[in-house]
Amino acid sequence: VGRFRDSEHQHARYNPLRDDWVLVSAHRVKRPWQGQLEKPPPEDVPRWDPNNPLCPGATRVNGEVNPQYEGTFVFPNDFPALQPDAPEPGDSDHPLFRAAAARGVCKVMCFHPWSDLTLPLMSLAEIRAVIDAWAELAAELGASYPWVQIFENKGAMMGCSNPHPHCQVWASSFLPNEARLEDRTQRQHLREHGVPMLLEYAEQEARRKERLVVENADWLVVVPYWATWPYQTLLLPRRHVCRLQDLHEGERDSLASIMQRLLIKYDNLFEVSFPYSMGWHGAPTGPYLEEDCGHWQLHAHYYPPLLRSATVRKFMVGYEMLAQAQRDLTPEQAAERLRSLPEVHYKQRTK
Amino acid sequence: VGRFRDSEHQHARYNPLRDDWVLVSAHRVKRPWQGQLEKPPPEDVPRWDPNNPLCPGATRVNGEVNPQYEGTFVFPNDFPALQPDAPEPGDSDHPLFRAAAARGVCKVMCFHPWSDLTLPLMSLAEIRAVIDAWAELAAELGASYPWVQIFENKGAMMGCSNPHPHCQVWASSFLPNEARLEDRTQRQHLREHGVPMLLEYAEQEARRKERLVVENADWLVVVPYWATWPYQTLLLPRRHVCRLQDLHEGERDSLASIMQRLLIKYDNLFEVSFPYSMGWHGAPTGPYLEEDCGHWQLHAHYYPPLLRSATVRKFMVGYEMLAQAQRDLTPEQAAERLRSLPEVHYKQRTK
Ligand SMILES: O=P(O)(O)O[C@H]1O[C@H](CO)[C@@H](O)[C@H](O)[C@H]1O
Ligand SMILES: O=P(O)(O)O[C@H]1O[C@H](CO)[C@@H](O)[C@H](O)[C@H]1O
Repeated sequence: VGRFRDSEHQHARYNPLRDDWVLVSAHRVKRPWQGQLEKPPPEDVPRWDPNNPLCPGATRVNGEVNPQYEGTFVFPNDFPALQPDAPEPGDSDHPLFRAAAARGVCKVMCFHPWSDLTLPLMSLAEIRAVIDAWAELAAELGASYPWVQIFENKGAMMGCSNPHPHCQVWASSFLPNEARLEDRTQRQHLREHGVPMLLEYAEQEARRKERLVVENADWLVVVPYWATWPYQTLLLPRRHVCRLQDLHEGERDSLASIMQRLLIKYDNLFEVSFPYSMGWHGAPTGPYLEEDCGHWQLHAHYYPPLLRSATVRKFMVGYEMLAQAQRDLTPEQAAERLRSLPEVHYKQRTK
Repeated sequence: VGRFRDSEHQHARYNPLRDDWVLVSAHRVKRPWQGQLEKPPPEDVPRWDPNNPLCPGATRVNGEVNPQYEGTFVFPNDFPALQPDAPEPGDSDHPLFRAAAARGVCKVMCFHPWSDLTLPLMSLAEIRAVIDAWAELAAELGASYPWVQIFENKGAMMGCSNPHPHCQVWASSFLPNEARLEDRTQRQHLREHGVPMLLEYAEQEARRKERLVVENADWLVVVPYWATWPYQTLLLPRRHVCRLQDLHEGERDSLASIMQRLLIKYDNLFEVSFPYSMGWHGAPTGPYLEEDCGHWQLHAHYYPPLLRSATVRKFMVGYEMLAQAQRDLTPEQAAERLRSLPEVHYKQRTK
């Protein structure tokens, strides 16, 4: 059988943040792919389109006209999954049939007035403006709601129905599953080890280096040891920070910089506007603002689906849905690949 | 605000099998869809193609030639995610970097010699042969492996790279995440309520009827109260059965019948070969064969992605990946829709 090498021998890795496992079978990336090919994103998106409801000056479905905004622009989602005033479901008549109230608000945030831009092509000042707008919304909605989920679906492959650069913010009256899970695991880690899990993890990764993608004085990005998506990353502050709104001026600038560097690498990987879903997790808010949230550490997850090229994705299907996530290259291999990519966007390279 | 109606007012529902929640926002199905359209499956699949490694008589990548099989056909996956003899990873040097051994085998099972057939178009006797082959493999691999995951990825949308009707069987030296989760919740339910969770659930649903899709003397199919995918279903026996291999003759026949009825309805929903990932869960095996598994109840999950038509799917992306699954129509609405569909396949209807 020989000596164990993780780039060669299948094994399982533990995800301490989700308390589950991923199956790593690096040898499997060699298999040929004859399945579905993804359409690369359109290259001819018009900068301004009066029929695109996210553009400045456009009319939305509810008849409202967008302002001629010049930076970021926040407005209510016209088809919100969460509304502030739904009535409470009645009491359950059986433990296997339990419903609970769900209230909230859904907002859309445009990053920029132009439809043909994406975050990695925006300037540092423009990315910084997005970060400030995130922090502001997180604080504003977090004043009353326990959880404010900021997330970006980028690319049609990730269910994004509009190429205009934007994200969504869904605030809810409850802690969603992922929040409850990370709350439990981080609380337990602090109790058992005396240090916030992700603070310790960032220190370890800064030292081990093999999963680092980019770093600066305040932040680092790693392909986490337990990554499930091929090029999944975790963006972490180096100091203990509970929430986006707690970031200092300098940390916001360095966040803009590290996001730009990561996203340029992502686009450069397959020379395509890299699809992903990303989002922020931090300490809960609303009533939790009064509680000790010292076990929490702010972080962003990036979940990109592409595996081998701009058109071949990883499918998380049968085995993954029914049993356990499985990946085809090691996190270390993915990190190496990302690390080695240039930090100049392929569209901005001078020949 | 008015009285609560679950087809109108968002709410959360509890999934007792996974111990998590789904957000139900039925009003949201009204929103227009301008995002990615899926390609319908090819209609011109040749019945026999010597270059298709799943066909009788074809040569596979490893040089082996398939027999001229006439029923089901099982062979080893040529790119297995699990192999029987991987070496053990070394001891972890830190609690945030934990690896574990993962061993197993991956098999492929062809359902039928023809590439242009799917389960809903097969005869009852042919489906029954698939069930027998499943039970046989489950028993054979389950003699030593703790978990035998039988799953079918159907359709390119579900990462299936070959139209030939087939499923996969991955047996592992460990309990995968979903198995551990269902083991814990079912064990707790039995302890607290004195009856296996899914046995009680089936009894309740048989009585309540609003989420029933099809039923017969031995089986029922429901859109579970906590379904996340739009037309997700759960196939349940009426009596307490731990494992596929425990099914009697009569139950195997009635299983073939109810599977055929469900899958015909699925195809009829959007008049397309309906994509899904499905799989069986039952009591663990190998060393667990010696233990009391009375809390387990055999069941199959069907996870189909389509939402509104043959080309518009539900994307489980940003909010779902980072916070919580969200659905756009109620399970009751989905069940009603499926229930009302004919049980003759649209391709076999005489005009
Ligand atoms: O083995 P296949 O069918 O080529 O692969 C498919 O199913 C596997 C098990 O769910 C997944 O890991 C793959 O991502 C998917 O493409
Ligand atoms: O609101 P959007 O961008 O139209 O919708 C997208 O993101 C939502 C939140 O992740 C998902 O529920 C939808 O399935 C997806 O298509």
